[in-house]
Amino acid sequence: MVSKATRFLAVDWGTTNRRVFLIDQGQVVRTERDDRGVTAVEDFESDAAGIRAQFGDLPMLMAGMVGSTVGWRVAPYVPAPAGLADLAANLLWIDDRTAIVPGISTMVGGRPDVMRGEEVQLLGAVAAGLVPPDSLLCQPGTHCKWVEMEAGRVADFTTAMTGELFAMLRKHGLLAAQLGGEVRPGAAFREGVEEARRRDLTASLFGIRAAKMLGVRDDADAASYASGLLIGSDVAARLATTGHDTVHILADPVLGALYSVAIETLGRSARLVDSQSAFVAGIIEIRNQ
Amino acid sequence: MVSKATRFLAVDWGTTNRRVFLIDQGQVVRTERDDRGVTAVEDFESDAAGIRAQFGDLPMLMAGMVGSTVGWRVAPYVPAPAGLADLAANLLWIDDRTAIVPGISTMVGGRPDVMRGEEVQLLGAVAAGLVPPDSLLCQPGTHCKWVEMEAGRVADFTTAMTGELFAMLRKHGLLAAQLGGEVRPGAAFREGVEEARRRDLTASLFGIRAAKMLGVRDDADAASYASGLLIGSDVAARLATTGHDTVHILADPVLGALYSVAIETLGRSARLVDSQSAFVAGIIEIRNQ
Repeated sequence: MVSKATRFLAVDWGTTNRRVFLIDQGQVVRTERDDRGVTAVEDFESDAAGIRAQFGDLPMLMAGMVGSTVGWRVAPYVPAPAGLADLAANLLWIDDRTAIVPGISTMVGGRPDVMRGEEVQLLGAVAAGLVPPDSLLCQPGTHCKWVEMEAGRVADFTTAMTGELFAMLRKHGLLAAQLGGEVRPGAAFREGVEEARRRDLTASLFGIRAAKMLGVRDDADAASYASGLLIGSDVAARLATTGHDTVHILADPVLGALYSVAIETLGRSARLVDSQSAFVAGIIEIRNQ
Repeated sequence: MVSKATRFLAVDWGTTNRRVFLIDQGQVVRTERDDRGVTAVEDFESDAAGIRAQFGDLPMLMAGMVGSTVGWRVAPYVPAPAGLADLAANLLWIDDRTAIVPGISTMVGGRPDVMRGEEVQLLGAVAAGLVPPDSLLCQPGTHCKWVEMEAGRVADFTTAMTGELFAMLRKHGLLAAQLGGEVRPGAAFREGVEEARRRDLTASLFGIRAAKMLGVRDDADAASYASGLLIGSDVAARLATTGHDTVHILADPVLGALYSVAIETLGRSARLVDSQSAFVAGIIEIRNQ
């Protein structure tokens, strides 16, 4: 539950972007996004002072890459299972009113995985009542995060390089010339999702080339097909190891629509969740604890 | 069986390289390799005349990308199942003593696939008695070819972008900085092959990054692990759809060793085959028919 809180500043501080929220009594009263991601910042102390000069001389709670080796200071990962209380208990304090929220790590099933920044949004979605305490969440992007939430805590999670791989294939190598088109969640996209059921990505990718050589698919559809194949591979692998019928997606509408279609093509339901509300709910809950 | 043939020139004419063989009475009497691949050639007629000036004014049989849209002239794909007799019956004649061997296409299982150049070597391996007429062959490389041979003909085949994907990951994106090390078929490579059993490539790839963040694998082993993961993904997908216990590998010793270890780690046997002898046997058999 999101309860009342005193005024404070929440900063979602990523690699390339940063969003600052001024929160008062559990409400966002002002928010701004800029390109002062951690890679653009040299002196975090003076940047933080700049934020306070702009938004108010208040306590500050930060999340994201600001707590990584390329950030202000390293906030060590909290091992899963972990909830908002575990994050709150493991804040890295810069001074008595400035803290960084730690990320979460896992070694479930022998595969190491890490997240940093996404955890506030994902756990916040539960805190805000946007998703059930026991549920499967998906946060698509360059590195797509999938979280098994149990009793409102991150029980386990998996990161897939789905977005990064697609961007790489569009830019480099054999398929790049074919993948310049717009990605739409239509028939070609769904065809790619169906192909992904084979769980044979490197061969399915070559099929895009072969389809061109044999003239069996309009090349204008190649990008949509490839996107369906990559997102479908991600979704198919995840659905194979979960019992949940519904996937809760935290994403912008475009990526959210693609993942929704992939999930539904593979026989489950998808629900879109407002991810900014989720972050705010999560950071307020950490602040309250 | 390789029978006697008159003198002729065989040219294995690929994208970036070209190998010329002077064959006499079924034996290679002279061979040379250069970088006159099809992308380096503008006037194929004059290049062919150059080969004849150097090796003798003889009939010439070419295979590979020389028969593609970026080559001399397009030799249309012969659909699988196809054997050497089918290729011989579908030569593209430039003139009455100059011909291009066609590639092979397939649509088996709804996935389009093509090969051009590899077919002579793969079918030649059977013709030379190096592999049984009913067998599973693997030709690793940038685009790894897997062939189900039935009664000495290509019954079906699959191409995986294994080598290209590995090269791309080493050069671009998040993992590039970790993958500069040497690839060896040791413990880290086998660990990658085991991980590949999950058939969840995009997530397993992110695990390489997470392993670094959590310090659970020496980063000097990351390239071997990644190679094991990619080759293992390729091998695991193929072994899932074949009944053969032995894979016959046509490759250079380094790549051959990696695929052998992956195949054996996943529970089957691997046998290395001399690929140059296979090409020569194949082209002689086509010439004889």
